[in-house]
Amino acid sequence: MKKTDVLIIGGSAAGLVAASTAKSNYPDKDVTLIRKEEIVMIPCGIPYIYGTTGTSEKNILPDAGLLKLGVNIIIDEVLSIDKEAKMCRTKEGEEFEYDKLIISTGSIPSIPKWLKESDLENVFTIPKNKVFLDEIQTKLEGCKKIVTIGAGFIGVELSDELNKIGREVTLVEKLPHILGLAFDEELAVEAEELLKSRGIQLLTGVGVKEILGDRKVSGILLENGEKIEADAVILSMGYRPNTKLAEEAGLKINDIGFIKTDQYRRTDHKDIFAAGDCAEKRDFITGRLNGIMLASTACAEARVAAMNLYKLSVVKTFAGTIGIYSTAIGETGFGAAGLTEALAEREGLDVVTGSFTGIDRHPGHIEDSHKQMVKLIASKDSGIILGGEVIGGKSAGELINVIGFIIQSRMTIVDLLTSQIGTQPLLTASPAGYPLIKAAEVVARNINKN
Amino acid sequence: MKKTDVLIIGGSAAGLVAASTAKSNYPDKDVTLIRKEEIVMIPCGIPYIYGTTGTSEKNILPDAGLLKLGVNIIIDEVLSIDKEAKMCRTKEGEEFEYDKLIISTGSIPSIPKWLKESDLENVFTIPKNKVFLDEIQTKLEGCKKIVTIGAGFIGVELSDELNKIGREVTLVEKLPHILGLAFDEELAVEAEELLKSRGIQLLTGVGVKEILGDRKVSGILLENGEKIEADAVILSMGYRPNTKLAEEAGLKINDIGFIKTDQYRRTDHKDIFAAGDCAEKRDFITGRLNGIMLASTACAEARVAAMNLYKLSVVKTFAGTIGIYSTAIGETGFGAAGLTEALAEREGLDVVTGSFTGIDRHPGHIEDSHKQMVKLIASKDSGIILGGEVIGGKSAGELINVIGFIIQSRMTIVDLLTSQIGTQPLLTASPAGYPLIKAAEVVARNINKN
Repeated sequence: MKKTDVLIIGGSAAGLVAASTAKSNYPDKDVTLIRKEEIVMIPCGIPYIYGTTGTSEKNILPDAGLLKLGVNIIIDEVLSIDKEAKMCRTKEGEEFEYDKLIISTGSIPSIPKWLKESDLENVFTIPKNKVFLDEIQTKLEGCKKIVTIGAGFIGVELSDELNKIGREVTLVEKLPHILGLAFDEELAVEAEELLKSRGIQLLTGVGVKEILGDRKVSGILLENGEKIEADAVILSMGYRPNTKLAEEAGLKINDIGFIKTDQYRRTDHKDIFAAGDCAEKRDFITGRLNGIMLASTACAEARVAAMNLYKLSVVKTFAGTIGIYSTAIGETGFGAAGLTEALAEREGLDVVTGSFTGIDRHPGHIEDSHKQMVKLIASKDSGIILGGEVIGGKSAGELINVIGFIIQSRMTIVDLLTSQIGTQPLLTASPAGYPLIKAAEVVARNINKN
Repeated sequence: MKKTDVLIIGGSAAGLVAASTAKSNYPDKDVTLIRKEEIVMIPCGIPYIYGTTGTSEKNILPDAGLLKLGVNIIIDEVLSIDKEAKMCRTKEGEEFEYDKLIISTGSIPSIPKWLKESDLENVFTIPKNKVFLDEIQTKLEGCKKIVTIGAGFIGVELSDELNKIGREVTLVEKLPHILGLAFDEELAVEAEELLKSRGIQLLTGVGVKEILGDRKVSGILLENGEKIEADAVILSMGYRPNTKLAEEAGLKINDIGFIKTDQYRRTDHKDIFAAGDCAEKRDFITGRLNGIMLASTACAEARVAAMNLYKLSVVKTFAGTIGIYSTAIGETGFGAAGLTEALAEREGLDVVTGSFTGIDRHPGHIEDSHKQMVKLIASKDSGIILGGEVIGGKSAGELINVIGFIIQSRMTIVDLLTSQIGTQPLLTASPAGYPLIKAAEVVARNINKN
């Protein structure tokens, strides 16, 4: 029987941040992280190992930081949690007694039922596991035609990367538009046009009926009867929370399959916390349960969990997921935060929107300038900003963080109209034509009009 | 006598935004903008006409937007304001009767007294005037050795641009460090090293005693007795508010020479507003008068002034200048917002700081990755964030806007520690190592330590 003060299960983004935050906040406590993987992949970097970075070796989450802090890292698999005895048993036959436990077991690729039986060769999901990812890379080397099913962020990024290295990629999405959960239609369409211009075949609004092949995959059959040839098929149809351990330990699971947690990220057992993809998420605006899995959100949750381990703080709480995403297709950056217009309307919120398109440098003659479009979604009665979407150059990645903080601090359109921004010719849009502020002006006009 | 509802004097950033905001908010009002310049320069773009953009023709603030809105643009010079008769007289002999007036007469280069007598050829200031700027460009063509005096943003940017086109540039600054009003020493030093590595001669902590030459400039004499040869000398020693018209009209001028204004940007006359470089600025944190002139702040002030013209709104007020700057030297972006540590201490604020250096992509193997450093300055008792400084790649320009909104919404270190950010391999730092959040962790630890 080994003893530790804080035990963390899982070593991806949430586990890493939980461990470092726990040790930083409670330096006198012994902190132990148990994970299955010898080597951990940077989760968001996974699509890029197939193109930009070229190898999983360049996508490793280093252990150095944790080791330097004095966190114990154990490579093993927790098989069971005994929440009454406050103890975990592992595959290697070890027993770990803990005082506080953080479950950050992440998520696993989700596969629809009709597909589960398929064990054809060259049909892949994208797990966060170096060994599997390397195997996929080796197998993809011999493949010319690749079909990606599911056009969320992973599907889009992976398709673009495989296209970069010369594969013929077809991306299939059942919903009317790609990235449809993060972006409203008019922005999703721009991403679609961009992918097509880069040579990717795009099929939206059509489901897949069957994966075809005999031993090895040969193609897919769409619901509309069309067949697409493929040497490999990648399933990027989302992930589901990995809650097996928690469930078996008798911890409460919420209605959509995540480990139930409160605003301190505690489960229904006071000494067990959960953070990351496996843990409950509620929308920041609507309070509804949702299933948005993001490494950055996982880190925020882990930070909150670890800070609250030994002393709950009413200010160090997690206020709900704002769903803040970004991605890049070539030199174009895309970002979204908070609610889309479509989702806000589905939720019954009375919203007003405004968009403005400018340039992300000034004057526009600066050589690396790029079109920059900002859309804002605001509550009609209060003017509170509920969501924002951005297309621009690579600085769109930080611009969506500007909007993220605006949403999280519950700023209004009027706050934006009286706010100060910093601008510089080589770095940003012009002060008089800064799209974020101009979009706020459009919202203000639309509020007055209605 | 011509009549207009809203008259705006000055056509740079503040005038432009005042006019467009006035017309957008009060579409039934007749809005007229009077300016001296036939063609207006984008103010922040001026240093770049000597290198990156290559010509003032590519740095023009277009009139199209204002004309489309229906703003009247008059090229003329207002010579006097009669505030009782609510009327302006111009150089062309016109009289304009107004209902509401916005003064946005900007600023003019400031030259120390000892230098004012110098009328040597090839000694230039940088006015915001296309004709003069073109003349300077023509004259600089024949110059090999150029000395820039004053290492604020304009001096630094101009020196870097002239260096880009092959000039031998010496930059002289009386203060111990360049950009010393915006950045704390450790960040300023990085900018200095970068400029030096690009081939610029840097002389800091030394004043200029005399400009040397006979008819034409031949060099400068430093206070330490050293002489520097020069074919041209550029004076970038700041700007002073252009308040002549306001002063002669009997409007109140504050103790440091700016037109006195309130939070609605009204002068002491209820129908006259002032915005931009000529108008009073108070520090957002300390409430003290300051002289920070920024196009982006000018635009914010102009927006507030114009929204309040016909109906004062207690929420549409200007809360004080946060001093939000950014610049780029090569591929490195620099940003600052709010108080520096040095200024906070001079003001007697009890502050705690924290810095963190990471990488602005993840993994760091992504090809256009760049070191990213964030420093935060927070109030010790409340944890409220008072200032931030950033060095990174080009996304530093938007990252400082993230910090700008954090300061303006008076977020605390704890708010940051529980906040969500969006991250993406090709666009931002990693979620677990995002320097802004990591810097907040350092501040939190330092607060607990003290």
